[in-house]
Amino acid sequence: MSASLAGKKIVVIGLGLIGGSLARALRTAEPAARIHAMDRSAPALEQARADGTLDEWGHDPNSACRDADLIVLAIPVLSIEGKLHELAPFLAPHTVITDVASVKGAIVEAAQRVFGRLPRRFIPGHPIAGSEQSGYGAARSDLYRGRKVILTPQSDSDPQAVAAVRALWSLVGAEVLTMDVIHHDQVLAATSHLPHLLAFALVDTLSQQGTREEIFRYAAGGFRDFTRIASSDPVMWRDIFVSNAEATVGILDEYQRELTQLRALLLARDGAALLELFGRANQSREIFLAFNRGQPAKPSE
Amino acid sequence: MSASLAGKKIVVIGLGLIGGSLARALRTAEPAARIHAMDRSAPALEQARADGTLDEWGHDPNSACRDADLIVLAIPVLSIEGKLHELAPFLAPHTVITDVASVKGAIVEAAQRVFGRLPRRFIPGHPIAGSEQSGYGAARSDLYRGRKVILTPQSDSDPQAVAAVRALWSLVGAEVLTMDVIHHDQVLAATSHLPHLLAFALVDTLSQQGTREEIFRYAAGGFRDFTRIASSDPVMWRDIFVSNAEATVGILDEYQRELTQLRALLLARDGAALLELFGRANQSREIFLAFNRGQPAKPSE
Repeated sequence: MSASLAGKKIVVIGLGLIGGSLARALRTAEPAARIHAMDRSAPALEQARADGTLDEWGHDPNSACRDADLIVLAIPVLSIEGKLHELAPFLAPHTVITDVASVKGAIVEAAQRVFGRLPRRFIPGHPIAGSEQSGYGAARSDLYRGRKVILTPQSDSDPQAVAAVRALWSLVGAEVLTMDVIHHDQVLAATSHLPHLLAFALVDTLSQQGTREEIFRYAAGGFRDFTRIASSDPVMWRDIFVSNAEATVGILDEYQRELTQLRALLLARDGAALLELFGRANQSREIFLAFNRGQPAKPSE
Repeated sequence: MSASLAGKKIVVIGLGLIGGSLARALRTAEPAARIHAMDRSAPALEQARADGTLDEWGHDPNSACRDADLIVLAIPVLSIEGKLHELAPFLAPHTVITDVASVKGAIVEAAQRVFGRLPRRFIPGHPIAGSEQSGYGAARSDLYRGRKVILTPQSDSDPQAVAAVRALWSLVGAEVLTMDVIHHDQVLAATSHLPHLLAFALVDTLSQQGTREEIFRYAAGGFRDFTRIASSDPVMWRDIFVSNAEATVGILDEYQRELTQLRALLLARDGAALLELFGRANQSREIFLAFNRGQPAKPSE
């Protein structure tokens, strides 16, 4: 498969926010691509068909895989293994496979269980994009514009397959980088999985308070942001945490140690130490922004 | 002092985001009010003078207090006691005092230390508004529109003084409610102080990782929101945590128990329990939104 996607058959499996946005972005960026979607949800397929995103659709693995140049798995992490089993009998040798899951180690292991090894033309990937919304209704053709996509090829991955997946994401405006599988899962545990866990935990803790009504009624900005983060898709996040438990617990333990130190500073009314820590967090914000200039802002709620 | 502020002298002490926004909102809502500002920062006074917000300004407590109908203390919690000492010799008996601090118990105690008791015309208050920005440059005349303001009068507070503070906040578009001091500090510990503490702690934890550069570079939405919350004014937050340590530690302990339970669920890969918890957080988001319909969205970064 060459780097151009004109005339190629691209199969998007799962028309949620991520798969749906990719399909819509491809439709816009390369009208000559043949876009085939597979989804359990008839309404999502119907909507994507009606808005002109799809050339073909259905839930038959044989017709999906037949002639497929590139298959993009855009379903929750724990659904990937079953889907690979379903597709395996129909996969052609030239077909390139990739996925969009937020965890990469579990994807490699799933592929190993199904195929005995990660196929040389299966290039795991992860677009760093999304929102707390989910489903095809929230899909946007510009979701990947200016965003980063991390690929985690192995040393024996087919370079042409890597080039094809790169071409896919470049076409929809993303910046493509590569990273080691284990390293990816650690970095994402810190930057994405832990923050979501903290938000789910805060919303859950406060909703169990006797003063829950008042807590919700008088909630200030801080809590509002946490509720938004915690409104993300429960199934997707269950799968991520089950699949990246080890790395998430590792960084959670460091975080809990920091909270315990902060607790001691509060009880000691140690204003000097608190001021130092808050000032440091302020500076980190500046560093963070410097690293991310030009990143489009998140859609507001 | 009647409920109308026309012709009244209103003294705003501290022209930061909160005091500056109040002064600007008052200027717009009641052009016939006499607005006097006190601030250590000459540039803030100069800016507010130049944009037409102020009638009088300076840093002399005598000229601020003389003829003052209403004094609004809009400085960090731990600065309040010193400021009350400075103003005390010049306060007229008819003058109403209020403040805007996020903690109310510490304000009552500061007033008790300065005056022997909370003066009957000192009505503690707290507008539930703000952003991670600070300073007069970030002040907006619409900051309080549609927001809630909690007053914590005592049983012997002067009803006319309560009415005057109510009138002030109603004039700039806020909804005024009353609450018990201790209860206020508990509710705010949960809804505002704890979320900010968690954000400061996360940004600090991650900025100490060896992989800090990558963490910042690949940060997804969740972490971005945390860095924004953690960019709030360090001095203001130091004062809040020192002043509301007990209540904040109380809810922090419940939160850490929840994190410890979540940790166990992750290590057990207990997908069913995680899904239940995330679904519950989703529902809480809906309840939260239902309680806050019509609340203006936070300014984006």
